Amino acid sequence: MPEFLTLISPAEARKVLLSHLNISTVESESVGILHALNRVSAEEILAPHPLPSFTRSSVDGYAVKASDTFGATESMPAYMKVVGEVEMGARPTQKVESGSALLIHTGGMLPDGADAVVMLEYVQQTRDGEVEVSRPVAGGENVIQVGEDVKEGDLILGKGTRIRPSEIGGLAAFGISVLRVAKTITVGIISTGDEVVPLGAEMQVGQVRDINSYTLAALVESKGALAKLYGIVPDRSEELAALARNALQECDLVLITAGSSASVRDMTADVINRLGSPGVLVHGINTRPGKPTILGVCEGKAVIGLPGNPVSALVNGLLFVVPLIEKLSLQITNLPQASIRATLNVNLASQAGREDWQPVRLVQKDSNWYAEPVFGKSNLIFTLSSADGLVCIPADSTGLSAGEQVDVYPY
Amino acid sequence: MPEFLTLISPAEARKVLLSHLNISTVESESVGILHALNRVSAEEILAPHPLPSFTRSSVDGYAVKASDTFGATESMPAYMKVVGEVEMGARPTQKVESGSALLIHTGGMLPDGADAVVMLEYVQQTRDGEVEVSRPVAGGENVIQVGEDVKEGDLILGKGTRIRPSEIGGLAAFGISVLRVAKTITVGIISTGDEVVPLGAEMQVGQVRDINSYTLAALVESKGALAKLYGIVPDRSEELAALARNALQECDLVLITAGSSASVRDMTADVINRLGSPGVLVHGINTRPGKPTILGVCEGKAVIGLPGNPVSALVNGLLFVVPLIEKLSLQITNLPQASIRATLNVNLASQAGREDWQPVRLVQKDSNWYAEPVFGKSNLIFTLSSADGLVCIPADSTGLSAGEQVDVYPY
Repeated sequence: MPEFLTLISPAEARKVLLSHLNISTVESESVGILHALNRVSAEEILAPHPLPSFTRSSVDGYAVKASDTFGATESMPAYMKVVGEVEMGARPTQKVESGSALLIHTGGMLPDGADAVVMLEYVQQTRDGEVEVSRPVAGGENVIQVGEDVKEGDLILGKGTRIRPSEIGGLAAFGISVLRVAKTITVGIISTGDEVVPLGAEMQVGQVRDINSYTLAALVESKGALAKLYGIVPDRSEELAALARNALQECDLVLITAGSSASVRDMTADVINRLGSPGVLVHGINTRPGKPTILGVCEGKAVIGLPGNPVSALVNGLLFVVPLIEKLSLQITNLPQASIRATLNVNLASQAGREDWQPVRLVQKDSNWYAEPVFGKSNLIFTLSSADGLVCIPADSTGLSAGEQVDVYPY
Repeated sequence: MPEFLTLISPAEARKVLLSHLNISTVESESVGILHALNRVSAEEILAPHPLPSFTRSSVDGYAVKASDTFGATESMPAYMKVVGEVEMGARPTQKVESGSALLIHTGGMLPDGADAVVMLEYVQQTRDGEVEVSRPVAGGENVIQVGEDVKEGDLILGKGTRIRPSEIGGLAAFGISVLRVAKTITVGIISTGDEVVPLGAEMQVGQVRDINSYTLAALVESKGALAKLYGIVPDRSEELAALARNALQECDLVLITAGSSASVRDMTADVINRLGSPGVLVHGINTRPGKPTILGVCEGKAVIGLPGNPVSALVNGLLFVVPLIEKLSLQITNLPQASIRATLNVNLASQAGREDWQPVRLVQKDSNWYAEPVFGKSNLIFTLSSADGLVCIPADSTGLSAGEQVDVYPY
């Protein structure tokens, strides 16, 4: 077997693959902010004006000159003449002079002459038109200054940022209704195997249903890409090459789930080499499941050969396809992945030098969470369906011990 | 102020709200499995047949009678006559008799007479039609038995399960192309405030742009619900009541981001009480941000009054609206939320009895991750845009200390 002679680590494999892709040519498109969720910004946006753009009250109370309240106590309150009320959403028509105050609501514009707001709680109405202030306020107290949220020209959205609800809110705050985002990545998916039949077809003894087209389509769509299914090709090199060439033309990235036998895996590698230069970059990765994964680049586009076993295909999709989609979408991902912490409830052995990804179920006992491995051959899709996440046994470890704290990564 | 007299905890508030909703009437609809990602199963699905449905080889090798290999070593190999090859996807046409073997590929159907597969690695071709086996195999070795993944009648998808790629794969394995899922929840969103103007409008001094309609729409859509924006109503009770009544008729759930001043919040509570029975259930929650949040149920549908401050609105959306959408979608969520572990880099004070949610930025130093609080008034949307997640300071704590390990929850 020409493959597996030199197994490299998953991290190294990802680096090799990504280094062969040129993302400077990634296309962008305009979307309205209501459709921008989870897209990736393709531009830098600077604040067109300060935010807030006028001085606002952050409480309900009275706009005053702070100096008028200095020394005020409950027994020695400061008296203010209430000269009016600040209308919401409008420039105040009155000024605050020494000894006077204007009723103001949260978000109201601070009137000229005022530099602070006394909260309602510390104000007592005495007689019509007059209030007692029982506590001093400092200049600027209970006031949001112009530019306190963002200054004019500040970066409000970086290129490569995945858009969350908070980013949409930030754009809305400036009245920015449209932005440029990286174009949606189209991922072509090809299943292979003489024994594999599509979802709707009649099944004969000895045949199995296509699983990988569907799990991989869902995986890439969960990352915001568009899946394009090319169906199933039998284990014949010419047919696979023709279909893959077609997919490569129509898509930004092509996944081939190779048959599981060694000869068929070699066929996938041959086809990737024939699709264009440089062809296969990595063949054989030191991970379980997923050793036979093939990473290639053909004429600037990635082609990935995933193992035919459903669990291997999905786990290796997470390890190699997801970071690729992020890179092709311009996404800058420098945060660790979120996980659920749990206590491993059995020993997990592993081979030193190999990175293992073990499906686990989360079980609660006495308000603690335990990670319970779901063992099963990697052909068994229900190993994943019945698990809640994956635990990584790193390459520099020969296993994890019962009682250890582990990170469970949901998928 | 009638509100805030009795503040209850967020957990208690959620319980009160959810206990007033009857989810037995949640509607379901059929979707194809390629469109089922992140939907919630509304039915139990049992395995219609065992999986695999025939005995398969899990390796490339030779199908044999295990007993024929007992005692085989490199120096004393067992000799087998190769009588043929198992075609992929078909029932083998030949049987394995004692002393004979059939070439078989991964996933091939085990021929009659064979009970194990010897891996290619342990087989040497001697002369045409004969192989040497240098290692014994046990009965069942390298074979996946009928029903080893799933037995007929086993539960393959539970009601209330959120559909992941692995669940889609599990259904595909059985040729199940359609399933019933909970109907998409429609969430009506109303913004209020005399000072609030919509995205496209011309702005006057003293006015601010609507942020909450957009952040909340994105939030509910990130949870698979459909947002329906009803725009902005001025702070007039009759107009709000009319619009909310309309939204309540058209949607499964209505959010009203109240103006921030006390009088306007009271208006929202009054309107919720007028919309139907039982009306306001919770008014005032012991959390920061979000104390003024109002939870109500009117004629069987939830109506939630969120604070007008953008950060409060979004954080309280996470605390109260997200669990509500999950419940209305039938989703069973009994796992803890995934988080990123980090070291807090400053002290964070809090009031005992109050649950605080503090936005933090994640910063890497010497390969450790630190959580660095982003301070800001809750009117400042960029407090959230520039943060990576939220840290919870629980009610039974008066704060967290610098150096403590914290869970950062991305949003």
